[in-house]
Amino acid sequence: MSGSSITDQEANMANVLSAKEQNLMDAYWRAANYLSVGQIYLYDNPLLKQSLTKEHIKPRLLGHWGTTPGLNFIYVHLNRIIKKLGLDMIYITGPGHGGPGIVANAYLEGTYSEVYPNITRDEEGMKRLFTQFSFPGGIPSHVAPETPGSIHEGGELGYALSHAYGAAFDNPDLIVACVVGDGEAETGPLATSWHSNKFLNPASDGAVLPILHLNGYKIANPCVLARISHEELDHLFRGYGYTPYFVEGHEPATMHELMASTLDKVLGEIQRIKADARQNGFGERPRWPMIVLRTPKGWTCPKEIDGKRTEDYWRSHQVPMGEMHENPAHVRILEEWMKSYKPAELFDDSGRLRPELADLAPRGTRRMSANPHTNGGLLLRELRLPNFRDYAVDVPSRGAVFAESTRVMGRFLRDVMKLNLEERNFRLFSPDENNSNRWQDVLEVTNRAWVAETVPWDDHLAPDGRVMEMLSEHQCQGWLEGYLLTGRHGFFSCYEAFIHIIDSMFNQHAKWLKVCNGIPWRRPISSLNYLLSSHVWRQDHNGFSHQDPGFLDHVANKKAEVVRIYLPPDANCLLSVTDHCLRSRNYVNVVVAGKQPAPQWLTMDEAIKHCEAGLGIWEWASNDRGGEPDVVMACCGDVPTLETLAAVDLLRRHAPDLKVRVINVVNLMKLQPASEHPHGLSDHDFDALFTAEKPVIFAFHGYPALIHRLTYRRTNHKNIHVRGYKEEGSTTTPFDMCVLNDLDRFHLVSDVIDRVPKLRERAAYAKQAIRDKLIDHREYICRYGDDMPEITGWRWGQEAGSAGVRSTEADNA
Amino acid sequence: MSGSSITDQEANMANVLSAKEQNLMDAYWRAANYLSVGQIYLYDNPLLKQSLTKEHIKPRLLGHWGTTPGLNFIYVHLNRIIKKLGLDMIYITGPGHGGPGIVANAYLEGTYSEVYPNITRDEEGMKRLFTQFSFPGGIPSHVAPETPGSIHEGGELGYALSHAYGAAFDNPDLIVACVVGDGEAETGPLATSWHSNKFLNPASDGAVLPILHLNGYKIANPCVLARISHEELDHLFRGYGYTPYFVEGHEPATMHELMASTLDKVLGEIQRIKADARQNGFGERPRWPMIVLRTPKGWTCPKEIDGKRTEDYWRSHQVPMGEMHENPAHVRILEEWMKSYKPAELFDDSGRLRPELADLAPRGTRRMSANPHTNGGLLLRELRLPNFRDYAVDVPSRGAVFAESTRVMGRFLRDVMKLNLEERNFRLFSPDENNSNRWQDVLEVTNRAWVAETVPWDDHLAPDGRVMEMLSEHQCQGWLEGYLLTGRHGFFSCYEAFIHIIDSMFNQHAKWLKVCNGIPWRRPISSLNYLLSSHVWRQDHNGFSHQDPGFLDHVANKKAEVVRIYLPPDANCLLSVTDHCLRSRNYVNVVVAGKQPAPQWLTMDEAIKHCEAGLGIWEWASNDRGGEPDVVMACCGDVPTLETLAAVDLLRRHAPDLKVRVINVVNLMKLQPASEHPHGLSDHDFDALFTAEKPVIFAFHGYPALIHRLTYRRTNHKNIHVRGYKEEGSTTTPFDMCVLNDLDRFHLVSDVIDRVPKLRERAAYAKQAIRDKLIDHREYICRYGDDMPEITGWRWGQEAGSAGVRSTEADNA
Ligand SMILES: Cc1ncc(C[n+]2csc(CCOP(=O)(O)OP(=O)(O)O)c2C)c(N)n1
Ligand SMILES: Cc1ncc(C[n+]2csc(CCOP(=O)(O)OP(=O)(O)O)c2C)c(N)n1
Ligand SMILES: [Mg+2]
Ligand SMILES: [Mg+2]
Repeated sequence: MSGSSITDQEANMANVLSAKEQNLMDAYWRAANYLSVGQIYLYDNPLLKQSLTKEHIKPRLLGHWGTTPGLNFIYVHLNRIIKKLGLDMIYITGPGHGGPGIVANAYLEGTYSEVYPNITRDEEGMKRLFTQFSFPGGIPSHVAPETPGSIHEGGELGYALSHAYGAAFDNPDLIVACVVGDGEAETGPLATSWHSNKFLNPASDGAVLPILHLNGYKIANPCVLARISHEELDHLFRGYGYTPYFVEGHEPATMHELMASTLDKVLGEIQRIKADARQNGFGERPRWPMIVLRTPKGWTCPKEIDGKRTEDYWRSHQVPMGEMHENPAHVRILEEWMKSYKPAELFDDSGRLRPELADLAPRGTRRMSANPHTNGGLLLRELRLPNFRDYAVDVPSRGAVFAESTRVMGRFLRDVMKLNLEERNFRLFSPDENNSNRWQDVLEVTNRAWVAETVPWDDHLAPDGRVMEMLSEHQCQGWLEGYLLTGRHGFFSCYEAFIHIIDSMFNQHAKWLKVCNGIPWRRPISSLNYLLSSHVWRQDHNGFSHQDPGFLDHVANKKAEVVRIYLPPDANCLLSVTDHCLRSRNYVNVVVAGKQPAPQWLTMDEAIKHCEAGLGIWEWASNDRGGEPDVVMACCGDVPTLETLAAVDLLRRHAPDLKVRVINVVNLMKLQPASEHPHGLSDHDFDALFTAEKPVIFAFHGYPALIHRLTYRRTNHKNIHVRGYKEEGSTTTPFDMCVLNDLDRFHLVSDVIDRVPKLRERAAYAKQAIRDKLIDHREYICRYGDDMPEITGWRWGQEAGSAGVRSTEADNA
Repeated sequence: MSGSSITDQEANMANVLSAKEQNLMDAYWRAANYLSVGQIYLYDNPLLKQSLTKEHIKPRLLGHWGTTPGLNFIYVHLNRIIKKLGLDMIYITGPGHGGPGIVANAYLEGTYSEVYPNITRDEEGMKRLFTQFSFPGGIPSHVAPETPGSIHEGGELGYALSHAYGAAFDNPDLIVACVVGDGEAETGPLATSWHSNKFLNPASDGAVLPILHLNGYKIANPCVLARISHEELDHLFRGYGYTPYFVEGHEPATMHELMASTLDKVLGEIQRIKADARQNGFGERPRWPMIVLRTPKGWTCPKEIDGKRTEDYWRSHQVPMGEMHENPAHVRILEEWMKSYKPAELFDDSGRLRPELADLAPRGTRRMSANPHTNGGLLLRELRLPNFRDYAVDVPSRGAVFAESTRVMGRFLRDVMKLNLEERNFRLFSPDENNSNRWQDVLEVTNRAWVAETVPWDDHLAPDGRVMEMLSEHQCQGWLEGYLLTGRHGFFSCYEAFIHIIDSMFNQHAKWLKVCNGIPWRRPISSLNYLLSSHVWRQDHNGFSHQDPGFLDHVANKKAEVVRIYLPPDANCLLSVTDHCLRSRNYVNVVVAGKQPAPQWLTMDEAIKHCEAGLGIWEWASNDRGGEPDVVMACCGDVPTLETLAAVDLLRRHAPDLKVRVINVVNLMKLQPASEHPHGLSDHDFDALFTAEKPVIFAFHGYPALIHRLTYRRTNHKNIHVRGYKEEGSTTTPFDMCVLNDLDRFHLVSDVIDRVPKLRERAAYAKQAIRDKLIDHREYICRYGDDMPEITGWRWGQEAGSAGVRSTEADNA
């Protein structure tokens, strides 16, 4: 264990850096720091050719200094090792608020001016570089999509390592250097993401080099990892499966040498591991190296300002010093601080970086700011897709055949997997729910990724498995994002209720995509695809805690141009939707589908047309053709569709003269006005379908409010009556879940009776019959624990059958 | 390090358990296991007096076996140590799907029959116990609110340890035994929650005893922690700051002895730590013990079923064997399995637990199922509250005084803290944002909790601090929940955007509260209070990634009876709302308020009335008194209120004859129909306020859709035109954020012009002037980086001032 403390070892070693090299690297670091401070503070006078005055300073100071010098320090050292070893490396910075540093480095190595020609490599360009930062019409304060070389904004902390590993999967030649803030390290997602090393194959995946940035502080507090003993810290990372290397100090000269020699060692180790795995195949999980970099927060800024500790303290986190326009002393301090980087040694009179410094950066696409992996669309190759029609469920008559939709989807995905095995650009992600959600057939052609210990009776675990299962929704999401952002494809399957765990990560990704749409040099990437199954209506083994269809509401808040929501009513529709999602770009696609045996409604041909349209009249279930309907029965989601059809069946029997139009909705966004969503129906089409004034009974998979918010502008909105989940449930029967939420066939019929004037005279008797039926239901299930045979045995258009179809085996069968 | 492996040490030690004691404990464990299997499978024949037939078996088998025998094993051992040492202990089981085990134990120790008299301690009661489990009209499958002794449902995995620590804070005599599933341990929230030990004061808090339940598997995969070396596992927990004790094996006899001796040791260690801290005060952070319990998943069930590995494998996770009604061999296996527990030795003929076994359980409230800490309302004491009126901001004229609302709130909270210091029942929680959100005054009377290392220049860190700051929203939420569920009070402050991180945890808590409302023996607990600040309109230092007001939409999906949403427009309203939240019970209260200097509108007296009403006409800003308004200007949220008033001011100047009614909304739920939410306005009152047909321009803090979904049933809904956040933003000026989202005063005026018929003739000129103004704005901010003086200097009812009020210092000042 003591072998990892560099300080001890170094004593006997020759210096890695020559004095000249060290001086140059230090100068490069100072240049990045100078440009970073300039971005935060300066409006003009970028080279400090004039004496600094408040007029040169921005009116509002917005940005973060504290993390930046550390990020810059790492940057120049990574540059050295990239050049030395000819590495293909990208840089992910967890504390993305260090935006000025990453922008500064992209500028120093020329990428910035290539991408944004207006930000030239001269005094004028430097001035613009400074002004635009955190400035209206300029660039945001974080390592945002606007920043070349970024796949990680780092605004919301916690996902750096998951992104890094996601980027490394299937990129055997890539090394992802990943800085983790010591504050960030306290977040849950980050704390578990260290374990990603149990899923990385040294032979066919790239490497991740985590660098814990132990600058001691977060916004206003010390960090936990900075305040435990060296021994505990060392234990922690060994426990996580890494070999930690400590680089600790604050003297630049010593630190340069220490960092350089450590990187030599660490990269040597990484190369050794990889070479070994390539030559000899996977043997056992390597103990990958990681670096603990302990430096002062705000390193190189004034030690104290106004008598208050600033460097090496939380006070340097944002803008270490304000009141620049009121306090002339502060202007002097700033000038001194910036001059301490000796700008004249760094930039020539025209503002150009001196050539011997410029020479330190790697060239072309080896520059981390220009590495194509960080603009994944550049590398994106289309998936080879089998013909989804070949997986169709045969539907000889409506609802007579039963299938588990997601299992059918799993078969299709199996062959998608198979066709792209060679290309190695497709993975599936799930928090231990791949089989529970019925994608197990995929395991016929690949395995679950696993490089931890195994036992002989293990089930489909292998180092090169392409199904990623860790019990962390955060990891699944983060890995998948990293995988997509570097130009690959994937699908995430999750229990519907627990997808809320990554609500906030979804937000960040949707925002990223939205911004990318406005950045011409960012090339489209594959969509982030969710299958939400084990959904609210069929959480049979669990209950109330597992019932929440609200992710749809959450998603609907994001920009219409990046979100899509699909609720296929049966397996063939699900196949069509799946194919569509896998072909799409720059979206988040949310697909909700059940895993339980359920009646199948549409032939493949019908399904394709239905899904293409997104919604439509089911003519075979309607009887209003050629006339006007008395009522529109709309449905969206598999269970609501079943209940709607059963209600229509009841109506046909008991009120055969009633004209019913059945509309099924697959693409939820069709309901929105065309002005709100690119998929939205025109008002004209909407009125034609939903009528201008007839009652619409809408059975919806999710919370009813979502339908209202999507349709409130429509002509007939006042007559749209929605049933959906209203937060009632427990561990009970499938049909009882519908009854508890008034979504069952009987309630739907009752809704029709209440709203169709011509049924009024029959209303009292009919409603009493319904009431009695619901009491029968309650009595029956409390006695027998299962739904009534007339419910489970119901078939479209047939006299009530008797043999119910029950749920399949348990989740882990 | 080697000192912690019990197996080594035990060799030389005398047995802790006598043979008799061991036999009794094993019998007790078998009884719990028997009852657990019975709950999962049996419908009748509870004592297996008859030969088992399929008629005795439930039609649908729903539940989880795999984790249960382990939970039961721990339970009987905790009982022993509780009795032996007279402990006050509660039991939190991360894998809450082990419901049958916890219910079984509550039944064995009598609590269950006390709480549910129908479930008697005899054959008939046992039959009911079995039947009701996961059965319609019965109880859910998890350790739900219905389960006596539970504060943790464990349906969504990951929060066990946070809850445990939350329960332990300020309960110096309490020991919280907390089982963590090895699958659960992979979740992010759980992975960081081990670090809670840096925040627990051994002198004045209780103790947490984590037990990692290393049964090797989750639903369908092995677990990471079960597949790393012993050394890594040991390192990991030492790295987390614990001393791990390993209890590993599967032979019941050996395991009983090992577990008992380990618990003796571990509890001895806990008691030593606590005694030391009490006598000598806090010295340094103790290395608390924790237990790694490695046993087979599904322990004691058939090793194989149908030739497939079942015990010690994932296949035992749920119901290890199905097809009970089709496969007679399975019925035989079940019978054999249940008989292997030797029920006749455990229960007498009447089904009563044999007295020598019953004797093993602790008595009265020392039974973990009857410990009052698990029904926190029993222990709840009201907070002492200062008079919030004393903190009022003086408002001599409308909008002339500026204040930072949340800072004013912080002063009030400081004194709440002070008044309850002695009672030790109030804490504040924040992910490193306490000061950023302007609650720093609280630190005048208490500190931040911290037992990790310190340095002399640290800022308000102390072992007995009552401000809980770790950079983990999950931890803040989990700790607070644990604290509230055990009968105490708290407030959580968070950046508005990042509260989505705990969307899913909020769901679980709201569901818990909803269910509790229907359980008479569950006593009301203090509400879970959120302050969301650094909100979407004023995320000055950050930008797009930090802008998301959608938590309100998320919350609005939950049962109306448990959620409340407040958006006070100024500091005095915030004070009134805060006081109200702290007095309330069984709710989740969400309060959104800004931290930046903002104009103050209402005197304290007015604020109280306004908040009490929840919404109302601001008469001083309206000019329609005695007549009908031409337009209603509604606003909700501090920034929308400012923009609305500025728009009204413009209208007054430029269209003085226009009759404007200004309505401000504090309590968002007032907008809903009374039928949907207990706070909802009657339609009559709503119509009176918002009129039946006049245009309503509604400026809203959040996503506009939320207002529509709350009001779509109202008479005048078609005329309600909402402005709010529409996912546009970056790092820019505060006013520009409004402009980007069409929420600014100019757009609002423009909306009025578009919608009020009598303004039509003036429309063209007015709208051109507005267009020009917005171009001026854009030009100005891109040049100067700050808002135009006429914007920042605007004051209600005055000619445009000139001195703008800018944001205060940075987040960490
Ligand atoms: C999930 C999340 N919670 C809170 C914040 C607010 N925040 C921004 S920076 C920061 C401190 C970060 O500290 P650290 O990771 O140590 O970064 P560094 O010290 O390098 O700046 C916090 C809490 C955030 N960005 N993300
Ligand atoms: C956050 C979350 N994700 C997924 C699930 C679905 N799930 C239920 S049980 C389980 C496996 C739990 O494994 P473990 O914690 O090891 O418990 P045990 O083996 O004791 O049953 C999973 C993934 C869940 N309950 N919560
Ligand atoms: Mg830090
Ligand atoms: Mg387990």
